[in-house]
Amino acid sequence: MAHFDPSTHPHRRFNPLTNEHILVSPHRTKRPWLGQMEPPQSSNLPQYDPKCYLCPGNIRSGGQTNPNYDNTFTFDNDFAALLPPPAPSPPVATHPLMTVEPVQGGCDVLIFHPRHDLTLARLKVEDIIRIIEEWTRIYVVRGSQEGIKYVQIFENKGAMMGCSNPHPHGQVWSLSALPTLPAMEMESLLKYSMSDQTESSAPRGFQGTFHRRPCLLCEYAHVETTMPEKPRVVLKNKDWVALVPWWAVWPFEILLLPYKRHIRSLCDLTATEKTSFADILSKVTKRYDNLFSCSFAYSMGLHQRPVPSSPGEETVEDEDVAHLHLHFTPPLLRDASVRKFLVGFELMAEAQRDLTPEQAAEKLRACSEVHYLDHIDN
Amino acid sequence: MAHFDPSTHPHRRFNPLTNEHILVSPHRTKRPWLGQMEPPQSSNLPQYDPKCYLCPGNIRSGGQTNPNYDNTFTFDNDFAALLPPPAPSPPVATHPLMTVEPVQGGCDVLIFHPRHDLTLARLKVEDIIRIIEEWTRIYVVRGSQEGIKYVQIFENKGAMMGCSNPHPHGQVWSLSALPTLPAMEMESLLKYSMSDQTESSAPRGFQGTFHRRPCLLCEYAHVETTMPEKPRVVLKNKDWVALVPWWAVWPFEILLLPYKRHIRSLCDLTATEKTSFADILSKVTKRYDNLFSCSFAYSMGLHQRPVPSSPGEETVEDEDVAHLHLHFTPPLLRDASVRKFLVGFELMAEAQRDLTPEQAAEKLRACSEVHYLDHIDN
Ligand SMILES: [Zn+2]
Ligand SMILES: [Zn+2]
Repeated sequence: MAHFDPSTHPHRRFNPLTNEHILVSPHRTKRPWLGQMEPPQSSNLPQYDPKCYLCPGNIRSGGQTNPNYDNTFTFDNDFAALLPPPAPSPPVATHPLMTVEPVQGGCDVLIFHPRHDLTLARLKVEDIIRIIEEWTRIYVVRGSQEGIKYVQIFENKGAMMGCSNPHPHGQVWSLSALPTLPAMEMESLLKYSMSDQTESSAPRGFQGTFHRRPCLLCEYAHVETTMPEKPRVVLKNKDWVALVPWWAVWPFEILLLPYKRHIRSLCDLTATEKTSFADILSKVTKRYDNLFSCSFAYSMGLHQRPVPSSPGEETVEDEDVAHLHLHFTPPLLRDASVRKFLVGFELMAEAQRDLTPEQAAEKLRACSEVHYLDHIDN
Repeated sequence: MAHFDPSTHPHRRFNPLTNEHILVSPHRTKRPWLGQMEPPQSSNLPQYDPKCYLCPGNIRSGGQTNPNYDNTFTFDNDFAALLPPPAPSPPVATHPLMTVEPVQGGCDVLIFHPRHDLTLARLKVEDIIRIIEEWTRIYVVRGSQEGIKYVQIFENKGAMMGCSNPHPHGQVWSLSALPTLPAMEMESLLKYSMSDQTESSAPRGFQGTFHRRPCLLCEYAHVETTMPEKPRVVLKNKDWVALVPWWAVWPFEILLLPYKRHIRSLCDLTATEKTSFADILSKVTKRYDNLFSCSFAYSMGLHQRPVPSSPGEETVEDEDVAHLHLHFTPPLLRDASVRKFLVGFELMAEAQRDLTPEQAAEKLRACSEVHYLDHIDN
């Protein structure tokens, strides 16, 4: 029997956050990497688009007029998937296999910046800090509302992701239930926090009066950032690391998280951690754009404590096992036009990838942190 | 508080097969249903395409020549995601959070018919019976190979699903591990089989010498086919029912399964059940094509006993809780060009839909079972 080589032999990897496997078929990437296959995409977007419903001063589909905002601007989605209270009385289930629960909540749209053409990859770090502050504000406001159990901050970028408006913006959905994926992650984090990890030198979980529980993500980030070769690390700064996780599903998926201490949510960030967060967000998105010299499509989401802890709260709750992290799930595979489809075997059986996470991280490490359009423009 | 109305109020439904929830936002579908928005798509495909690597007599990318086959033709994928044994020796895990297991197996491509232009929706029932027989043959052959623990039969149809060749074909992947999704379903079926369901009049699980255990899918199919309004049933014949499941993620998702008795796998089908299976496959795919007058894209997959039971085996094994069923997951939403994207909140938190399963089933019930191209051609 040959010696196992993860860059050659088909294998399965396990995702300890979701308890799912991924099938990796590295022998299918024996083709040489051709790099950029298409000419760099110039940004043909204007700084202001009179037809854009997100630009300052324009009228939205619901009839409201946007103010002449200076940095971020947040409004209630005019076509929200969730509605505010009151929720109707719970129905009687027809059958135990057909259960239903009413849900309530709200959907916010957060415009990142007045400029129609500036994505995270092209905004200044100061502007990204303002976005982080606005995320924090919405997380606190929505997370404190009566009945709200979860706040999901996310960005959906690019026509390839079904996002019809290129004006840089994200969304925040708040709801009266903990959704499937965060619930799975919280369960895994809680289980890990109860496990015995006495030998690890990683940071530990939330330091309540008596508790320093092991944290799955503190441990994972510690291992990735301290191993000799760091094959999956794309970049790190003094507080944060961006890596292609061992169990990545999307070709250039990134997990971005703090690795120096257990940070439960945006509310726990110090001023310097906020700045270094903006710094790494800027660098990750620049590398993404530079990979295929295009405005890189992705969905990005923040996972953290489902809602903020009560002010002055000293007791450790189950929710404090949450470790703030971001998932970037981009669909592009080989160049600006070749995308991965989640279909067939993947919908029916299990996620599958050819390019290994290590190969993806290597390609992202090779990208510049100067945006390609800044080369073109100069 | 208003009385709960599942066609008006946002709510969550639970999928007992996967233990996942779906967020339903029916208030967003208040827009009138416009029906067909685009002219019917004529099939401009030739009966034979000299450039198609699946047509009879043509050369495949691996260099082999296809025979002049008469009905189905199966070959090993020239670019397979899985490789046959020997597998390399298992590696030493770097860390408990980075586990890896070598996997082996095979990937077959099954051409449905010599005609380049005839999908399931346009093939005769006799031709579909031959496909079912070929599925059964491959399932038995692959499922009996040393080390194979699971056989996944699926079809990926349409450019929208990343399928580059329109020549009707499916795939079969066999592997030395039970993949994530079927493993979850098997666990749910096993758990249900241990539960107390004495009051139900539904068919029961596999009838070994002493066992008649409850079956989640026997029960679910029984409830859907016997309730007064049958709001989610699209069509049924004497053995099979096609319905939009209570927990459907995709707009026009269909679950197709036998409802009269517990059938573990293709191997259990009687001759008449095979014919009625071909009949309902033909009718479901015709309705799909007729919905937007186009060749309807989807991924379709068969879930059944992971591998066939050993011949003459009388003891009941855990695998016998499997209940043969097919999932159809089509991406189209409103017409032949408007698709659903699984992005943003759905990738980060939970699946979401606007159109309710009941509304989707109603639209599919309204479709003809005569293919729209047969109207055009005549
Ligand atoms: Zn997460
Ligand atoms: Zn299934």
